[in-house]
Amino acid sequence: MLDGKLHERCGIFGVFHNKDASRLTYLGLYALQHRGQESSGIVSADGDVLKIHKAMGLVNQVFRRDEPLARLDGMHAIGHNRYSTTGASSLANAQPILINCKIGQIAGAHNGNLTNARSLRAEMENDGSIFTSSTDTEVIMHLIARSKHDTVASMILDALSRVRGAYSILFLTKDALYGARDPRGVRPLLLGKKENSFFLSSESCAFDLVGADMVREIKPGEMIRIDRRGARSYTVPAFEPVEGHAHCVFEFIYFSRPDSFVFGENVDKVRRKLGRQLAREHPAPGADIVMGVPDSATTAALGYAEESGIKYDIGLIRNHYVGRTFIQPAQAGRNFGVRVKFNTVKGVLKGKRVVVVDDSIVRGTTMKSIIALLRTAEPEEIHLRVSSPPILCPCFYGIDMPTKQELIGSSKSVNEIRRYMGADSLGYLSIDGMLSVMPSPHENFCNACFSGAYPIGINGTGEDA
Amino acid sequence: MLDGKLHERCGIFGVFHNKDASRLTYLGLYALQHRGQESSGIVSADGDVLKIHKAMGLVNQVFRRDEPLARLDGMHAIGHNRYSTTGASSLANAQPILINCKIGQIAGAHNGNLTNARSLRAEMENDGSIFTSSTDTEVIMHLIARSKHDTVASMILDALSRVRGAYSILFLTKDALYGARDPRGVRPLLLGKKENSFFLSSESCAFDLVGADMVREIKPGEMIRIDRRGARSYTVPAFEPVEGHAHCVFEFIYFSRPDSFVFGENVDKVRRKLGRQLAREHPAPGADIVMGVPDSATTAALGYAEESGIKYDIGLIRNHYVGRTFIQPAQAGRNFGVRVKFNTVKGVLKGKRVVVVDDSIVRGTTMKSIIALLRTAEPEEIHLRVSSPPILCPCFYGIDMPTKQELIGSSKSVNEIRRYMGADSLGYLSIDGMLSVMPSPHENFCNACFSGAYPIGINGTGEDA
Amino acid sequence: MLDGKLHERCGIFGVFHNKDASRLTYLGLYALQHRGQESSGIVSADGDVLKIHKAMGLVNQVFRRDEPLARLDGMHAIGHNRYSTTGASSLANAQPILINCKIGQIAGAHNGNLTNARSLRAEMENDGSIFTSSTDTEVIMHLIARSKHDTVASMILDALSRVRGAYSILFLTKDALYGARDPRGVRPLLLGKKENSFFLSSESCAFDLVGADMVREIKPGEMIRIDRRGARSYTVPAFEPVEGHAHCVFEFIYFSRPDSFVFGENVDKVRRKLGRQLAREHPAPGADIVMGVPDSATTAALGYAEESGIKYDIGLIRNHYVGRTFIQPAQAGRNFGVRVKFNTVKGVLKGKRVVVVDDSIVRGTTMKSIIALLRTAEPEEIHLRVSSPPILCPCFYGIDMPTKQELIGSSKSVNEIRRYMGADSLGYLSIDGMLSVMPSPHENFCNACFSGAYPIGINGTGEDA
Amino acid sequence: MLDGKLHERCGIFGVFHNKDASRLTYLGLYALQHRGQESSGIVSADGDVLKIHKAMGLVNQVFRRDEPLARLDGMHAIGHNRYSTTGASSLANAQPILINCKIGQIAGAHNGNLTNARSLRAEMENDGSIFTSSTDTEVIMHLIARSKHDTVASMILDALSRVRGAYSILFLTKDALYGARDPRGVRPLLLGKKENSFFLSSESCAFDLVGADMVREIKPGEMIRIDRRGARSYTVPAFEPVEGHAHCVFEFIYFSRPDSFVFGENVDKVRRKLGRQLAREHPAPGADIVMGVPDSATTAALGYAEESGIKYDIGLIRNHYVGRTFIQPAQAGRNFGVRVKFNTVKGVLKGKRVVVVDDSIVRGTTMKSIIALLRTAEPEEIHLRVSSPPILCPCFYGIDMPTKQELIGSSKSVNEIRRYMGADSLGYLSIDGMLSVMPSPHENFCNACFSGAYPIGINGTGEDA
Repeated sequence: MLDGKLHERCGIFGVFHNKDASRLTYLGLYALQHRGQESSGIVSADGDVLKIHKAMGLVNQVFRRDEPLARLDGMHAIGHNRYSTTGASSLANAQPILINCKIGQIAGAHNGNLTNARSLRAEMENDGSIFTSSTDTEVIMHLIARSKHDTVASMILDALSRVRGAYSILFLTKDALYGARDPRGVRPLLLGKKENSFFLSSESCAFDLVGADMVREIKPGEMIRIDRRGARSYTVPAFEPVEGHAHCVFEFIYFSRPDSFVFGENVDKVRRKLGRQLAREHPAPGADIVMGVPDSATTAALGYAEESGIKYDIGLIRNHYVGRTFIQPAQAGRNFGVRVKFNTVKGVLKGKRVVVVDDSIVRGTTMKSIIALLRTAEPEEIHLRVSSPPILCPCFYGIDMPTKQELIGSSKSVNEIRRYMGADSLGYLSIDGMLSVMPSPHENFCNACFSGAYPIGINGTGEDA
Repeated sequence: MLDGKLHERCGIFGVFHNKDASRLTYLGLYALQHRGQESSGIVSADGDVLKIHKAMGLVNQVFRRDEPLARLDGMHAIGHNRYSTTGASSLANAQPILINCKIGQIAGAHNGNLTNARSLRAEMENDGSIFTSSTDTEVIMHLIARSKHDTVASMILDALSRVRGAYSILFLTKDALYGARDPRGVRPLLLGKKENSFFLSSESCAFDLVGADMVREIKPGEMIRIDRRGARSYTVPAFEPVEGHAHCVFEFIYFSRPDSFVFGENVDKVRRKLGRQLAREHPAPGADIVMGVPDSATTAALGYAEESGIKYDIGLIRNHYVGRTFIQPAQAGRNFGVRVKFNTVKGVLKGKRVVVVDDSIVRGTTMKSIIALLRTAEPEEIHLRVSSPPILCPCFYGIDMPTKQELIGSSKSVNEIRRYMGADSLGYLSIDGMLSVMPSPHENFCNACFSGAYPIGINGTGEDA
Repeated sequence: MLDGKLHERCGIFGVFHNKDASRLTYLGLYALQHRGQESSGIVSADGDVLKIHKAMGLVNQVFRRDEPLARLDGMHAIGHNRYSTTGASSLANAQPILINCKIGQIAGAHNGNLTNARSLRAEMENDGSIFTSSTDTEVIMHLIARSKHDTVASMILDALSRVRGAYSILFLTKDALYGARDPRGVRPLLLGKKENSFFLSSESCAFDLVGADMVREIKPGEMIRIDRRGARSYTVPAFEPVEGHAHCVFEFIYFSRPDSFVFGENVDKVRRKLGRQLAREHPAPGADIVMGVPDSATTAALGYAEESGIKYDIGLIRNHYVGRTFIQPAQAGRNFGVRVKFNTVKGVLKGKRVVVVDDSIVRGTTMKSIIALLRTAEPEEIHLRVSSPPILCPCFYGIDMPTKQELIGSSKSVNEIRRYMGADSLGYLSIDGMLSVMPSPHENFCNACFSGAYPIGINGTGEDA
Repeated sequence: MLDGKLHERCGIFGVFHNKDASRLTYLGLYALQHRGQESSGIVSADGDVLKIHKAMGLVNQVFRRDEPLARLDGMHAIGHNRYSTTGASSLANAQPILINCKIGQIAGAHNGNLTNARSLRAEMENDGSIFTSSTDTEVIMHLIARSKHDTVASMILDALSRVRGAYSILFLTKDALYGARDPRGVRPLLLGKKENSFFLSSESCAFDLVGADMVREIKPGEMIRIDRRGARSYTVPAFEPVEGHAHCVFEFIYFSRPDSFVFGENVDKVRRKLGRQLAREHPAPGADIVMGVPDSATTAALGYAEESGIKYDIGLIRNHYVGRTFIQPAQAGRNFGVRVKFNTVKGVLKGKRVVVVDDSIVRGTTMKSIIALLRTAEPEEIHLRVSSPPILCPCFYGIDMPTKQELIGSSKSVNEIRRYMGADSLGYLSIDGMLSVMPSPHENFCNACFSGAYPIGINGTGEDA
């Protein structure tokens, strides 16, 4: 459970050549809703004109009525769910971004964060460019528009060769769909197919909903271009020499849906192994039950239970009716935010020694509230286990974490954290243990937020001053 | 999972003497959201005037902004979540119902179904009464207004003595809160307290959210009246001689939240026992995993896993972003409705012999789709286990089931159902097995929908022609 | 301009036998929008079931989308625009009112005020009736439901025979449309026809919009019943001996649209005569221009100009974009409410001796602001002329005026009013002058608000204590 | 009445140094609502950050609640009402446009049309710029961002020196407000003041509402810059040698409110003179009454009546409740669109010889419907008089007229138009007559749409292919 913001885990989805392109994109975005709930948008192409509809809110709020989808006609479409970054949470930052430039209309939808966006932006502003959002995507759109290359494909490649950082990104023109991944492969992007239609998605779960088959992952540093004649692969010219991949471990720890396949493996499978490894590293002998913080830590808790032999149980119920707005009564009482989301199952917890598994801890405030809530059900002991290591450093590739000071793992020792939380014991998974269960080779995974070992240069970010 | 409508499991909540009465009622209704999603409403009393706000939608849609709650000032309030009955799903049927009559303003909020509402209504219409809804609640309000008794309490008792059927019901006047349960105790109703404030609620989970302590259940046939001097208990004069209680087993099987306490027991505890008993009656030797249909059958599946020793796992993910409106693309494909709600976890299911536990089957169409969906993940075998008996007969006390013909348990043999579903085996819990795990004494539970043995006369319902 | 509330000038409209019944009712209500802007509603009958849609707001806000109109299918319909009375401005009081009673479904839509509603209501509450609104209409619906007569027509007549006061009222059942007027004919009601369809409307302007021809006025004390065989006329049994008619003069002075025909005459014609008579009674020798307060006093101003020979001009522009909600800046300044609605035409006013004609003055506060606004354009003199007499007494037949103390005409002399307003001279039309231009016979018009001579008993109103 | 679209008569309003800046801008836009009803927006500056809120709809729909205005804090603000041009009627084209560029944030709000926007846009796109709207404003923002000059003021002047066409335009930075008019002065722009606050507005009527005094007009070719030290005037470098001014006559004929002052004169005064001149050129001897098509032709009709001595009267009532959406019943009948807006006053028209004055005729379809509607009131004769000449040519400076073929004045003779309309006679004002009543010198007024004599080059517009 991430109670600090781990941002920019946006969801992107694209369709090429389907009569129902915008409606299938709507479905795809709906399956990717967990990657971003702030705003949602779709651009469709009918072979001639690109049309857009985007607004603040969940996918099925933005497309509550059929009217905007009906208006987004055409055989191709891309869509985006946004999880707000540092930038203002405003409509101006909603995606896709649709522009006109010398090649006509082109739209972009981006998941990731660039580390040299600021300097590129300053450079282009200095040269007379105007910006209407604070997104990295707009920087890339400008680079495309400014490219001297002569085809759209090579203009996009030219643009991408100038950016450093993490991106999985889609582009749509009136007659082609493009998907690209940064050379380190920080964020996932997959190719799907169904009859004559192509699909691109952040996660495979969206293919399941639209009834498409997963073909393969877009490779790190690959750009795919899909038009009426089929799909063609390109290599993104590297900004700097690439030393291996840097898949974000958090996709397995928390971001992706357990029923998705990313980075060469089923998420559920890896998440369960994290739980098993956690049980090996931090057993809880004598505990009566293992429970996870729903829903994200459920799979890890199952793994912990399997490995430890301790009975799995459900001690917290999650309320799924929580919407974006919730009025807090004056007399709401302590831990209200957590109580609105969760309730304890008293019969399960009372008098028990309980292992509580969570996937990660950022600031620690939410987990502190959850433990206080669990205490009201009078368990004998609470042993907190975390299926990832302490977060020590901010992320610059698309996870807009709090500053170092706000990271509880950075400012407190494990024992201090335990005391702060009010747990009877606390165990974090080790970095090695975590990497050991990642799909091989383990060097392909970025663990900078746990280790500070940043695989991609971060000049141009807020930190390089 | 009830894919036929099992209606009138509305949620009711009341507060007496709290400065934040309407906001706490909003919270209580929010905790009871699972009992009704069609409409929501609150009436508050400020010692002088009763005010109302109700609308179609979820609690936090109806009270999206603070404005209506701010308008509902006063120290006392009652609220209602409606799960539509046969009656039109319209605002006219939303509750609470607020009326003026000779005693001034009085509001009512009702959970249950009367079996003599039609004849009472016809009788009163014949005598010149007018009705503006198709709710049973309005019938009761008329009976109160027509009573010749001289206090509000005795007028309500007089009215309740004339109705037959199931009700847990709240009334609010400018200076008192009333809560009553029918003599058979079909639906739950509980009393809570927090400092000087009293609370009444369908389930105890709502007390947890508002920070109140559960005091006790309102007894079958009891009416409680709360005013500034405290709470006083009355006996509802029986419409006919009462032969024991008739608690609705479905509260334990499906309706109530697992973290609630009703009918003298924690729901989670009984639901788990149902799963255990199911495992004893219908084991699945050789199965690899046990999974429940989320979220309602999860607890029973845990019980089945514990008793059978088969590993519990999660093979279906539920999408919690499904709202009331969802646009279905033309090319949505088969089982779309189920696919939007669920996705399989392929790694868990592939090649496995799977026990799937569900809580109940009404029409069977949804379960058929779920099994088809599970098959796409290529399990070796699917063994369906249902933690309640086949539903053979309609309910007249608040569960507005399909007609007998539509009940798959009524029109097909178990083996025919298995074939229709596409399961490799199918086992339903027995009536005796089900009753054996209910809180003692077992005779206190109604099982008419499984057995046809109706404990309360049903003259005046649609069946008595 | 009525700046005190002159209420209950609701608009009613009905259609019998037209495939487009609810949409034509929507149009009719739209033409009658000036009679009430608080809420709007339509009930349609499809020969079997009556359906309703009503909400707060203007007609084209309540029916913004086609969906509710499409749902209101059926060949017959009635609709209502409400101008709020003393009762709370709430949805509960919106009309039509649709009820079930012993004769099945019946809906009512009412324009007028009863003087014995309170006592009838108290009497029926005492006898066990419940009320869900504070409208007089609900009282009448109860009387119908309670009638012992044996046909709907005679039940309605029976009910109307028990009420005293002003009403033009429509009823709809599944197969018949009824329209009735009180024996004094206080409010208008007209019959229209177009091919095989019948129409009933408060004013004739609604017939123009739906393309129907006016047939005749419903007579005071007449009830018309329209079914598939045609229209049939009944006499409403009088509550008390009737001494002539009591048409509300305010329909000619202010309420009705100038393009309507009511009480046997074109409104425009009478309104112009009021202006002519005003010029005869209160000339303004030496004045340069005559202007009216737009839009209601424009016609009277034209009459004044014609009679006096003084040039008509337009010195105030009315802003027609004012909606129900308008945010008032902190620094809005004096007379903001009037300035948002009006602006002066400086070139017309500067240095001129101006005759300003308004139709009526209630509290006087708005007119005081208008004169202050006009002064900013620096006219030489302002001569205020009012095309109705000073309002001295409250109205009990459907005009919910301020109390006597608030009526400026009641508490101040004409000269005091002039000084308060800041006008250079002030002339009110005399009662005799006003009556002299009404359609003959003049005794048929009620002038109680000017004279205190109430033609209908007011026992049972708020004044009879 | 313009029934073809005469576009881009947007309204702009700005405030400098007022605590209530955004709310006063809201008021100003409200007063300018007649200049554009498609979208509305405000940008405020609080000395540090610029904030924006814009949406489709009327001013008081876009700012229905106080929340967006409260968020738009700061001492300075500019706002815009849009009347859609050829460009899609979409949010992307709503103004103000707020950008980031090398000088930080700057917002622009523009009234007018450029004739070289296309070529500038193509040139900049070619050079790598991206566009997100189809507005001319965005072209100007790009020119500013690209300017090599070193102060904001000189960058704006540099940008404006490159555009050809019509503009009155406002810019806002965090600490200064700019207002500029094109060298020909096609559209109006005025300076107002109230205590220490400065105001800029398209028309003076907005000053009246916010309580400001008009100081003077911004001169053609002038840019004013307002900051904390006061206002300073600049000259816009001319794109090409300027030969006199080219004020748009349509501001006097139709666009501006009669209570406004623009181009050195009160609109009401000029509009009345147009009517007088029309009466001289095309008398209607023997006519009984003169009426105008409300509301825009009312003043001209008064002028016609004064000059001719024929009595002014009101024969058409305009319905002011027409909103943007109106459901048209299937059986709506002929001329429905006109009948929803207007109704005849039968008593005024019947048997009369009527002079109908309208301000202008574009396609002629609406006027044809109005005359058909008037005929239903059975006047003896209808003499149509138009207070402007026949429109022969499209406008390229901000009036996006239909193509030449669609202009009835271009494709038909006056007699053919008369027959098409169904009028008994038809008279258009002459060009000379029209110009003779404009404020002197008459050469300052553009009459290209009547004469084809375009004062500003139109290369780069749609016509130069």
